[in-house]
Amino acid sequence: MSATLDALQWRYATKKMNGTAVEQPLVDEIIEAARLAPTSSGLQPFSIIEITDAELKKKIQPIANNQSQIVDASHLLIFAAWDNYTEERINERFARIAAERELPLSTVEDYKNRLIAGYVPRSAEVNFQHAARQAYIAFGAAIVAAAELKVDTTPMEGFKNDELDELLELSKYGLKSVTILAIGYRDTDNDWLVNLKKVRVPTSELVIKLP
Amino acid sequence: MSATLDALQWRYATKKMNGTAVEQPLVDEIIEAARLAPTSSGLQPFSIIEITDAELKKKIQPIANNQSQIVDASHLLIFAAWDNYTEERINERFARIAAERELPLSTVEDYKNRLIAGYVPRSAEVNFQHAARQAYIAFGAAIVAAAELKVDTTPMEGFKNDELDELLELSKYGLKSVTILAIGYRDTDNDWLVNLKKVRVPTSELVIKLP
Repeated sequence: MSATLDALQWRYATKKMNGTAVEQPLVDEIIEAARLAPTSSGLQPFSIIEITDAELKKKIQPIANNQSQIVDASHLLIFAAWDNYTEERINERFARIAAERELPLSTVEDYKNRLIAGYVPRSAEVNFQHAARQAYIAFGAAIVAAAELKVDTTPMEGFKNDELDELLELSKYGLKSVTILAIGYRDTDNDWLVNLKKVRVPTSELVIKLP
Repeated sequence: MSATLDALQWRYATKKMNGTAVEQPLVDEIIEAARLAPTSSGLQPFSIIEITDAELKKKIQPIANNQSQIVDASHLLIFAAWDNYTEERINERFARIAAERELPLSTVEDYKNRLIAGYVPRSAEVNFQHAARQAYIAFGAAIVAAAELKVDTTPMEGFKNDELDELLELSKYGLKSVTILAIGYRDTDNDWLVNLKKVRVPTSELVIKLP
């Protein structure tokens, strides 16, 4: 079996973590997977907020349904998407692409201008939803990367986004939180989910072969 | 380096495919990664439409900006999310979870009822957006799985979703298309992107360490 499938079979949404610290190089590999993940037009319209501070985790816990993983995790990675697409943000990304490829800016100009013309007039909400989806691709890659390293994660959507954004002052970065990846190690003796069977829709139901 | 990072470094958004068929067991592994990917509350609110038929690909091509990968790909996987959350759909998923874990339905009842109470009253649009995000996690896992197998992919959002939904009659399944994963092999001689440097935001910019 491939490493990816092995990792996905091994992982589960850890419900109780044991408080053990995850070594930073492992967390950096997980972040690297998110960084390398593809995004629409290569815009990478999100940031990752990395938190290890116990006091800050304690403040986040009530915002996240008091879930224990928030404080028992070693690291919290908060995936936060751009609150909007702007001409400045798109220009900045394409300037990097041209510079790193040692190409004149003119080679990306037409494509970039089509994106700006397509995205900037849309509502902030439509653009945020689009940016959020890109963050989810990276979130998926990070989950696979962690599992391959035998590092446990809990993918979390169950938190009050607005309250978290306010606590972390994400608006000053032009970001809005979308998901939390709690990173740590399972507490095998106290996790009700650890020994339960992984349940998935069978392939025959998930896949529709056409025509 | 981990297999996940290797895979993410190897892959790129293939712009020209060479028409070679990808063996079905490899495609099945890619689909398996999507099937095993985590989703919110384990609902797996999406399906994958698998297409190999040349005639159907030709009909899809004009809907997808005439991109050549649509017809040169071996397989198209169309990720299509639930158009809404319904009590019936949620009940079905939890019935499976309880059955496969050999637990009485009552053990999942409270959680399931909270989900129904939370999701069903929301607008179809809000629920579709939420379901779409879950499909993106699976999309990310599938991209990693393909790259590990040295199978090329093009992740595509550039198509007219409504027209594709109509062509494939997705409304009869209660689905709306969100992304296409074109699967095939790169045409190294004719792909303008194949030899260009992969460009990503540096980690120091992507990550915000708090406090």
